[in-house]
Amino acid sequence: MYNALRGQKVLSNLRKNSLRQCLLSDPYAIYYLCGRWIFPGERFLALIIKEDDKPVLVLNELFRFEEEIGVRKVYYKDGQELTSLLGPLLNENEALGVDKNLPARYLLPLIDAKLASAFVNASWAVDDARALKDEEEREKMRRASLINDQAMERFTKLVKEGITETEIADQMLGIYKELGANGYSFEPIVAFGKNAADPHHMPDDTKLKKGDVVLYDVGCVVDEYCSDMTRTFFFLEEPGEEARRIYELVRNANESAEAFCAPGRKIADIDKTARDIIAEGGYGKDFTHRLGHFIGMETHEAGDVSQANPNTAAAGNTFSIEPGIYSLEQGVGVRIEDLVLITEDGVEVLNHYPHDIQIIG
Amino acid sequence: MYNALRGQKVLSNLRKNSLRQCLLSDPYAIYYLCGRWIFPGERFLALIIKEDDKPVLVLNELFRFEEEIGVRKVYYKDGQELTSLLGPLLNENEALGVDKNLPARYLLPLIDAKLASAFVNASWAVDDARALKDEEEREKMRRASLINDQAMERFTKLVKEGITETEIADQMLGIYKELGANGYSFEPIVAFGKNAADPHHMPDDTKLKKGDVVLYDVGCVVDEYCSDMTRTFFFLEEPGEEARRIYELVRNANESAEAFCAPGRKIADIDKTARDIIAEGGYGKDFTHRLGHFIGMETHEAGDVSQANPNTAAAGNTFSIEPGIYSLEQGVGVRIEDLVLITEDGVEVLNHYPHDIQIIG
Repeated sequence: MYNALRGQKVLSNLRKNSLRQCLLSDPYAIYYLCGRWIFPGERFLALIIKEDDKPVLVLNELFRFEEEIGVRKVYYKDGQELTSLLGPLLNENEALGVDKNLPARYLLPLIDAKLASAFVNASWAVDDARALKDEEEREKMRRASLINDQAMERFTKLVKEGITETEIADQMLGIYKELGANGYSFEPIVAFGKNAADPHHMPDDTKLKKGDVVLYDVGCVVDEYCSDMTRTFFFLEEPGEEARRIYELVRNANESAEAFCAPGRKIADIDKTARDIIAEGGYGKDFTHRLGHFIGMETHEAGDVSQANPNTAAAGNTFSIEPGIYSLEQGVGVRIEDLVLITEDGVEVLNHYPHDIQIIG
Repeated sequence: MYNALRGQKVLSNLRKNSLRQCLLSDPYAIYYLCGRWIFPGERFLALIIKEDDKPVLVLNELFRFEEEIGVRKVYYKDGQELTSLLGPLLNENEALGVDKNLPARYLLPLIDAKLASAFVNASWAVDDARALKDEEEREKMRRASLINDQAMERFTKLVKEGITETEIADQMLGIYKELGANGYSFEPIVAFGKNAADPHHMPDDTKLKKGDVVLYDVGCVVDEYCSDMTRTFFFLEEPGEEARRIYELVRNANESAEAFCAPGRKIADIDKTARDIIAEGGYGKDFTHRLGHFIGMETHEAGDVSQANPNTAAAGNTFSIEPGIYSLEQGVGVRIEDLVLITEDGVEVLNHYPHDIQIIG
């Protein structure tokens, strides 16, 4: 069903750029606004929203559906010329915001037919709306992370001497599905020992041995919303002194950054809170990535938690806090990641799985 | 290495539309012209080709490479403004052909900065060149289909009572790799019994039983070029009278259409040759799709073999001939597909696996 409140958020964002009509083609944007997935492949699909007008969904008749979803549906056939179909739906005297990914083969005919007075990339208007989760979305984000917490508990039981990263990763989807998730939000990262010192490591045939670090970076989709969490464990043996110091630095960076989160905080300062702690501990050069990323219906949504982000946190933002230290010299990689939700008066950490050093196996 | 002959073909096609410069972004188009795969994800990538000028490859410095490939390389950094980089590379007083999939976020700034006098979808110029395979490409198409013939022979040995479609499909990639292929050209279709009457059926847990039809629609990639072939077998038992008649109708449609192929033939008439035979046999309504599709580096390239195609076949065209009858009443689906290469004086059928009725198991 078309979500009029979300539509108003998008229109209000558009107005900031003097836009009063836009044509969206991203299936995620259309699901966000209409609650319905349509994946048209190569075919044209658009949701047109305008001030003071019922939204119009333009779709190929192959995707016809009868359900009433609060939008006007306009169908076309394969081979039909689109500009004459779209002309009456747009105001030719006003600028049109278009989806950033609208392909040239669809955009150029609109421009040539002068269906609007100007054409502007307007995906940011939807991205900005999606960055402010409403109550329904917040609840879905909580549920996805709750299931991720339960899954992490199960994943700690999978370890045994000699098992490979791939053999563990292959069991994760089944566990997520048993717990009620729809699937992965991304392919799980399972890294043993030195592999954990590569933040982009993908599971391979490395065998688990006593004394290894076990790093899980995992997430699932529940009701179309994503979770994403990382924990780093030690297999069968207490960590050595330096590994323990590294772990506690990362933990401190994670918890300090999370505690610092609140509406009105500069995003760059949230990153800095974690980064300074790791730098002061002597591992600044081994924290090689941004602190986090925005997340929601997609694992990576518009918005970095990094020094380069000029914005401030706002109620409804959900993003990851995932400091890490990747020390090839020490042969140790540690990352601790939670999702946080910025609330009206502070922050809610969506993951509850503990941060303590845990020996598993 | 930049293939100047192919580049000239593209430029010559562009001239037919009074275009003298184009900006290509499709990784396949760039591989076709430069012999190098670059998959930039979300980042901008373009090959600019112009009359009387060395081609220019514009790419993010993350994709830097030293090899000399006969093009000028222009690198940019993340965050760098692209229009000032592209301005000097384009002729602002002439129209620019652009890739049909160039996203609005890249196209709109070029238009706003008036980097060309007009912007036109020009992917057809590359598609038309790619539709005329040169000798190197023809040899690769032959090799891919030869391996597909060998694989089909191996696939006939996989059947046994009670095996599922998925269990057979799961063995195919290994066989292709043993035979020297790089991978699938598309996910294999394995359909038993009534499932073969659904042309879009994907392998599932259906178990094979005596008397079933076994339909394999399979292909592999060899040296970047694709094969694609379908055969329909009978498991353990001779087909009944009507199933045999359906099989022979499809075989006759396939072989007649293939024999009709030659340079100068209307594509629509090739389709009609097969379609008329099936219609005269009383199964016209059960041949529910086009006769075939063009193929090369991609399994589906520009060009249908259908009634709607107004073009004539030309030397270097490679496409599939795949008539089928899908009769739910008879509980039978039969499709027989080969690839053909139009030669200077006729046609070469690239698949050699026989068309005879074959009982397997």
